[in-house]
Amino acid sequence: MSVEALFNPRSIALVGATDKSGWSISTLLNLRTHGFAGSVHLVNPRGGVVHGSPAFRSLTEIPEPVDLAYVMVPTTAVLGVLREGTKLGIRCYVILTAGFGEAGEEGARLESEIAAFAAENSLVILGPNGNGYINAAADVTPYGLPIPEPLLRGSVGVVLQSGALASSVLAFAQARNVGISLLTSMGNESVVTVTDVIDYLVDDPATKVVALFLETIRNPAEFARVARRALEAGKPIVALKIGRSKLASHTAQAHTGALVGDDDVIDAALRQLGVIRVRSLEDLIITAGLLASTGPLPGRRVGVVTPSGGASEIIADRAEDEGLELPPFAPETVARLAEIVPAFGNVANPLDVTGYVLIDRTLLGRALEVVTADPEIDLVMLLSEPPRIAPPDPAPAFALYSASARRIAESPVPVVVVSNVLTDVTEFGRKVQQETGFPYVVGGIEHGLHAIGAAVRWSEARARALARPPAVPGDPRPAPPGATGVWAEHRASALLAAAGLPVVPSTLVSEESEAVAAAEGFGYPVVLKIAAEGLGHKSDIGGVRLGLSGPEEVREAFRALIAAVPPAATAAGGTGPALAGVLVQPQRSGGVELLVGLVRDPAWGLTLAVGLGGIWVEVLRDTALRVLPVDTAEVRLALSELRGTALLQGARGGEPADLDAVAEVVARIAAFAETLGDELESLEINPLLVTGSRVEALDALVTWRTPG
Amino acid sequence: MSVEALFNPRSIALVGATDKSGWSISTLLNLRTHGFAGSVHLVNPRGGVVHGSPAFRSLTEIPEPVDLAYVMVPTTAVLGVLREGTKLGIRCYVILTAGFGEAGEEGARLESEIAAFAAENSLVILGPNGNGYINAAADVTPYGLPIPEPLLRGSVGVVLQSGALASSVLAFAQARNVGISLLTSMGNESVVTVTDVIDYLVDDPATKVVALFLETIRNPAEFARVARRALEAGKPIVALKIGRSKLASHTAQAHTGALVGDDDVIDAALRQLGVIRVRSLEDLIITAGLLASTGPLPGRRVGVVTPSGGASEIIADRAEDEGLELPPFAPETVARLAEIVPAFGNVANPLDVTGYVLIDRTLLGRALEVVTADPEIDLVMLLSEPPRIAPPDPAPAFALYSASARRIAESPVPVVVVSNVLTDVTEFGRKVQQETGFPYVVGGIEHGLHAIGAAVRWSEARARALARPPAVPGDPRPAPPGATGVWAEHRASALLAAAGLPVVPSTLVSEESEAVAAAEGFGYPVVLKIAAEGLGHKSDIGGVRLGLSGPEEVREAFRALIAAVPPAATAAGGTGPALAGVLVQPQRSGGVELLVGLVRDPAWGLTLAVGLGGIWVEVLRDTALRVLPVDTAEVRLALSELRGTALLQGARGGEPADLDAVAEVVARIAAFAETLGDELESLEINPLLVTGSRVEALDALVTWRTPG
Repeated sequence: MSVEALFNPRSIALVGATDKSGWSISTLLNLRTHGFAGSVHLVNPRGGVVHGSPAFRSLTEIPEPVDLAYVMVPTTAVLGVLREGTKLGIRCYVILTAGFGEAGEEGARLESEIAAFAAENSLVILGPNGNGYINAAADVTPYGLPIPEPLLRGSVGVVLQSGALASSVLAFAQARNVGISLLTSMGNESVVTVTDVIDYLVDDPATKVVALFLETIRNPAEFARVARRALEAGKPIVALKIGRSKLASHTAQAHTGALVGDDDVIDAALRQLGVIRVRSLEDLIITAGLLASTGPLPGRRVGVVTPSGGASEIIADRAEDEGLELPPFAPETVARLAEIVPAFGNVANPLDVTGYVLIDRTLLGRALEVVTADPEIDLVMLLSEPPRIAPPDPAPAFALYSASARRIAESPVPVVVVSNVLTDVTEFGRKVQQETGFPYVVGGIEHGLHAIGAAVRWSEARARALARPPAVPGDPRPAPPGATGVWAEHRASALLAAAGLPVVPSTLVSEESEAVAAAEGFGYPVVLKIAAEGLGHKSDIGGVRLGLSGPEEVREAFRALIAAVPPAATAAGGTGPALAGVLVQPQRSGGVELLVGLVRDPAWGLTLAVGLGGIWVEVLRDTALRVLPVDTAEVRLALSELRGTALLQGARGGEPADLDAVAEVVARIAAFAETLGDELESLEINPLLVTGSRVEALDALVTWRTPG
Repeated sequence: MSVEALFNPRSIALVGATDKSGWSISTLLNLRTHGFAGSVHLVNPRGGVVHGSPAFRSLTEIPEPVDLAYVMVPTTAVLGVLREGTKLGIRCYVILTAGFGEAGEEGARLESEIAAFAAENSLVILGPNGNGYINAAADVTPYGLPIPEPLLRGSVGVVLQSGALASSVLAFAQARNVGISLLTSMGNESVVTVTDVIDYLVDDPATKVVALFLETIRNPAEFARVARRALEAGKPIVALKIGRSKLASHTAQAHTGALVGDDDVIDAALRQLGVIRVRSLEDLIITAGLLASTGPLPGRRVGVVTPSGGASEIIADRAEDEGLELPPFAPETVARLAEIVPAFGNVANPLDVTGYVLIDRTLLGRALEVVTADPEIDLVMLLSEPPRIAPPDPAPAFALYSASARRIAESPVPVVVVSNVLTDVTEFGRKVQQETGFPYVVGGIEHGLHAIGAAVRWSEARARALARPPAVPGDPRPAPPGATGVWAEHRASALLAAAGLPVVPSTLVSEESEAVAAAEGFGYPVVLKIAAEGLGHKSDIGGVRLGLSGPEEVREAFRALIAAVPPAATAAGGTGPALAGVLVQPQRSGGVELLVGLVRDPAWGLTLAVGLGGIWVEVLRDTALRVLPVDTAEVRLALSELRGTALLQGARGGEPADLDAVAEVVARIAAFAETLGDELESLEINPLLVTGSRVEALDALVTWRTPG
């Protein structure tokens, strides 16, 4: 849905305007004091004077066309306003009124009426239960809460699924001297959704970065689509998505499902979509501000210039946490710095030019110029910040910061300026930045390095993500015939094998003699497994016999397996497990066991979890997760994220796995799972045995949504 | 060393005072503007007028006794000032002058002269190369840099091993409205050390919390002593200790040594000592401010009261990260809240009283009162903050915050006030806090929950730490005879067994027939191992034969082991490994293998590392570390910290280990290692086999400091 008209009205009616409401007062004040050039009309059913101006009794009385109605009437009166407005040709609305879906059943009914009416009449409605928006770029501010002054205009577009946090976000952005293009308080998203607004921001020339506060991702496919658009447009999305602590309400039976919470899926999806996930409001704004200031960063090799040894060491610690590199300076850099830095300074990266900056005010700038010329670094982190308080004679400060600003602007690599600690950029500091062109100052070493790390990772991931299919649920597909209940190994493995996937050879037999014949065909040792559905894990009931080295052992094992099945399973029409026979397979040895699980997430569709078997998955929950589709390169990356990845690479004397071969097979399994249709609940291969470049599924289980 | 006199002088001489030095200007200005009631004398060899006042040519010219000389003369002139002052009976000095140990060999020589002179004459010297101190509690501020105004007096004592960060710390403390009692910029610590200052702060009635910025812990035993004193006095120490990223320069050969960096030892030591380690300057001040405000917190069950659903969910996520519990409210609390909170609010913990707080200003306070009365919570987190900007009529704001302050003061449980985001407490906000008694506001949800988590953990750990021996290097001890080189299993295990520790039985033999006799004595199966020193890992050269089930296998294994040893080992006077014979042991099976390593840290002395064997230690580096001494309870805690602890508890069908029995044996091993004297470099038991309550060392290796 296009929200262009919603955010750019030329005339606005405040419906339900009243002196008694703080929201009404704030909205009008915001429009009047933040440069709205169009007309504002007040509507109150009693007419009279509201906020010192005459009010119309209804929208109908307004003598000129209205582009946007800002609705503050009681809950039950909202639909009437929409009807009246629709007759008058008003398409865009902000509904501030609460008491809808968030308030219970009756409210939800009213809300669905509104949504239905909007759909019939192609209305564009923001809310209900939202405070409106601040289009700072266009001076349109129909927003129901006080806006902290001054409103800083800039290039960060903010979309919030929480009205109450908007004031904090605005206050913090102001404290960081981060300007916004648009801030939207979404409310209940009955009509206009977060993704509609992101779509707008991707096209909005005033916006360089999108900052999101998300309680829920209502439509993953739409979210994936707009995230992809943002990535292609080079506009980073930074998101604070809450709900990390809520455990998934998965009903999946497969191990992999039980080991993965919903939030892990969201986390994987966001990473695959190139969305930067942060965990605090501070990091949301600081990171967005950085990327709005620098754009993509060229690499992770950072040269650090500071006036303090203590700060240098904090930076070294934090840079390591963030995976940033602080390479040694090139010899020519060291030589040039040795001429600049006082004798007791330490010419190394991170560079401490020492407290002599207090005496020689040019010291930091000269050192910066040398470090930015170092051929071995991708960007420079400069520890500096504008002054907090105006000195009696501010001229030298302005001159100093102008000179620094020029050096930074002329640097061949990006220079990220970071302050020691996270304190507000003061009014004077902001003035210095504005008048001298001194760039954005990232707030404090702690958050600053987090932001630089995130920006570097985003920059690196962007190219990779653009080269791959987006993580988005595919189109609906039909299920194969008989796709109900649980398919045990004999059916699941056959399904995989039929698709050309590498599965251990296997013969289903129903007689002792057939079992022996099959074993002789494979060669000893062999494995016998019970083939039955509804048994749960085969091994739990003694349904697996390993290492059978001759015909007598095979016969004995066959009889024991059959005897282990509860009688109901073998009776015709029995309600117990359905005995299909016994599987005979050659016994494999050596190698590393992987677990490959494909589980349907209720929101994001099929997800892939890969991990090492045994304690790795059962005790350590060491799995790497991806939303489908995935290609071989993405699976390769997933394998490299495992804590146990060293085992695959031959740690402890094992044969190194051919990771390309493993990734290729896993990607093919994932692609095959996608062809199985929407009835597929899960497909688990446990283990997938890897011996060098040989990759083979030794067991499989398929669960369909429809009970058998 | 007592620093009482250093920090409480009645007269101060500024030696080297000059109009040309910013330090000189700042120091005098600081003393004059921050209430120093004593006399200040300026000393300049040229005399004349300095900073608008007449200067003395030397200390000798000053007509009254001087308690403290603040020295800013050139590096080479410092010792002369000390000599002159000593003759005059001046005992206390701050040396601001740089160019000493930090500047190279010549500087180090000058510094050691000063230290020697100070020791001879019992001088108390802060520095050199430090900016002095700010004794805010006593209005004594001989400090060489501008102090950000206003200087807030309070109860946090700050000790910094970095002069350059002091300004940032002061600025940030001010922004958080955290007052300090004393701030010390340590400089090179030639005479007065960090631990001297901590000792002072523990006794200082103005100080409730100690905040440290540490680059190095110069004297671990002293540090442990003062940390213990602080713990006993109930004064939390919060420390930002940098150097996390530097890998240890250990020379230990043992696995455990290679797997543990120095910083891990420091981390373990700080935890054992009850020191709260933080990783940012922001967390340093915010956490110290919280503890100065609340003192110990009674538990981890937090009731949360907020005006915002979005904030509630951020809090829920972060609380889980910090291990805090947000239990459901008691039924009576829910019933009372349901009468207060608007219909669309959600009566649950965390509580969102909704944006109606903007209309009903009493809403948050009334809800707070109900939640503080809930019997199931230990403390309340209230999301609130003083206003940033003075409204035209500030009276209602003062009334509102006075009422809140009263409610908080009267609460039966501690109420921790946290703001949404980390922005400065403004001048007006500070005024509101001062005049209404509104308490300390923790800065932002992100840092706030970190601080609450740290404070809760400290409160819980304090009792535990007080009940145990402090983690501190013991007194020097002699080494046993022959304590050189590496003692392989046959000697190391005998040492353990002789001390009554549980070691697998073992017989050292030198003939095939003796081997068979020993095997028959133990019963089959048995293990044969080569017994020789200088071989490296036995298993690497085929020096271990497992599962020998009869005399023929034993004979064959014996011959093979002897043959595997390089000839030099057996030749008299050979330089190769010294062959002692072959060890015969009964073969054990089942159980869980632990690794127990005792490694001498160059700074902290013997450390204990425990972990599960195999991939746990080799791939995952999953060890828990403690500085000695440890008791059984501490080892039990260490075992519970292992990621693989579930395996010990019987995950994957194994027999659950008797963790008390394991902890008891490990604690005895650790205590025994302490008796082996300072020549012990490492003692490694790998594996320590645990089968239920049976705990037995299957192999051991001892390394002494002196090469063999």
